[in-house]
Amino acid sequence: MVNGKKLNKILLRIFKKYGLSTKHSKICSQALINAELVGAHSHGLSRLKMYCKRIEKKIINPKPKIKIKKISQSISKINADNCIGFVAGEVGIKEAIKNAKKTGFGLVGIKNSGHYGLSGYYAEKAVKKNLIVFSFTNAPPAIAPYGSRKKLFGTNPICFGTPTGSKIPFILDMSVSVINRGKIRLAERLGKKIPKGVALDKYGKPTTDAKKALKGVQLPIGGFRGSGLAWMVDILSGVLTGGNHGGKVKDPFDDFSGPQNIGHLFIVIKPNLFVGNYNHRIKENIKRVKRLPKIKNVKEIFFPGQNKFYRFKKNLKKKIYISKEIQRDLNNL
Amino acid sequence: MVNGKKLNKILLRIFKKYGLSTKHSKICSQALINAELVGAHSHGLSRLKMYCKRIEKKIINPKPKIKIKKISQSISKINADNCIGFVAGEVGIKEAIKNAKKTGFGLVGIKNSGHYGLSGYYAEKAVKKNLIVFSFTNAPPAIAPYGSRKKLFGTNPICFGTPTGSKIPFILDMSVSVINRGKIRLAERLGKKIPKGVALDKYGKPTTDAKKALKGVQLPIGGFRGSGLAWMVDILSGVLTGGNHGGKVKDPFDDFSGPQNIGHLFIVIKPNLFVGNYNHRIKENIKRVKRLPKIKNVKEIFFPGQNKFYRFKKNLKKKIYISKEIQRDLNNL
Repeated sequence: MVNGKKLNKILLRIFKKYGLSTKHSKICSQALINAELVGAHSHGLSRLKMYCKRIEKKIINPKPKIKIKKISQSISKINADNCIGFVAGEVGIKEAIKNAKKTGFGLVGIKNSGHYGLSGYYAEKAVKKNLIVFSFTNAPPAIAPYGSRKKLFGTNPICFGTPTGSKIPFILDMSVSVINRGKIRLAERLGKKIPKGVALDKYGKPTTDAKKALKGVQLPIGGFRGSGLAWMVDILSGVLTGGNHGGKVKDPFDDFSGPQNIGHLFIVIKPNLFVGNYNHRIKENIKRVKRLPKIKNVKEIFFPGQNKFYRFKKNLKKKIYISKEIQRDLNNL
Repeated sequence: MVNGKKLNKILLRIFKKYGLSTKHSKICSQALINAELVGAHSHGLSRLKMYCKRIEKKIINPKPKIKIKKISQSISKINADNCIGFVAGEVGIKEAIKNAKKTGFGLVGIKNSGHYGLSGYYAEKAVKKNLIVFSFTNAPPAIAPYGSRKKLFGTNPICFGTPTGSKIPFILDMSVSVINRGKIRLAERLGKKIPKGVALDKYGKPTTDAKKALKGVQLPIGGFRGSGLAWMVDILSGVLTGGNHGGKVKDPFDDFSGPQNIGHLFIVIKPNLFVGNYNHRIKENIKRVKRLPKIKNVKEIFFPGQNKFYRFKKNLKKKIYISKEIQRDLNNL
């Protein structure tokens, strides 16, 4: 167990040791600690070792020359120079926010980036400035396109955020796979079966065996629908921005043959463009959903992001749990 | 059976009789015939009677004064004056295309519209001008928010289109319900069961009984994921634009107490903003997916919209099938 302040100091020391500037080290440390606080441990400290290894292997650039090119007052193009994804994400969303504040709308395409953690983390930054936001990124192959038995699309999250008229942001940040890979890994460890319809074995046959599923492919939600959504995200964040796409994003844990060249796309919109009272309207919208009759055992209908917000608030007061494995990583790094 | 030309003449005559201008009648006729040709009969002639009835009841305005207000060179706001949705959709997407051609990006919010048919129909218009497009619209209650047992969100399609470097547009146009309502209706008529996990009965309990499902609610794909997507679309097309939202969009078939006031949102993006060779890149992207190993009985992996395109081409050469019911409608109207 460690408190956030102390963890931040440790992380800063590590990132600086690996050659990042103080400013970039801060960005990375904050993103990792945020992932721990919202309970997304798979996107937090468990990735630290991987990031450091990629820096060591010179496939993450610790001293990037990030180039921002204005295409118009609304649109910017960023070459992230293979920096650590957190920095590209931070620079990108700030640029998109600036453009949207000025013109009502901001569009930012980023190439030559890496895994940037949680999409919702960047969306939240825009929502806190009272803006509506889409955040798209692609990821290494995990999902089989509909009709195929080989993975190609990443879990390619769809991320959308909006102010709610309250201090809790509405952040939909969903992968398009039926269940998270982490859950399949857990089922494997516990010797449990996984539900039907979430994965295929390596021969393309449906399986409920976690071990076989891990060797095969994950399935997208809603069959061709989820497959189409994953494809859309690959196009928006990869094809459009100049990033890798079509299965060419490298796995950050397994493939050290070169940089990931992930692409990100941010779309940011001012909420009061068409109506004068957006925050009042969205408040009313959420109220209408919340007062619907509930199914058994449901006390409150949550909007996307609400649960995560409560978890964050709760965890902020507590110390952060560090597993033995993570502690070893921190000591070694 | 009737050929397209003749059907067009009949439809023009009907719409003009109901007070629409020649220009608006043409827009409506084309949209309806297109729906028949792509095989989306539920969005075609089967809705004609409903549209005419709503005009008769003065809740669709046949002589609208559509107001387009430029917010910037990229952003426009449209008050559709309760016109028939097809006209609002056509005017809106044209405006968004114009803005995008000029500035790289077009954003158009529309309020006071009605059901505009297939989202993909408008997306296709942008793709044919070599543009990337999102088209959002909300719809009358059909889906229960995750945790609720009462419907509130519409089937709220997510629609995304992109040029492909070939003459076939990539058009993802998907409702967020697990199966279409039409399929449940068909199962009811045939006395068949519906699959597990697609609907709840009116008490909020899962059901495979089509009759009970029709009285209950449809479920979104991927549980909280699809529910979140439906909510996102309601916010973008309703809350943001000034249209109805949060379950207030009236059912066009059943509720004649007033106009629908549906909202639409179009986002249009030039594909060569960040890269010089988008069409080459997307072609390569699609090629990579297509050459993956396939599951049993799949000959080719189709991209979204490909199937519809072939259906359209095939049907274009044939006469259009008119059921007895539709023939009766055409005669009466």
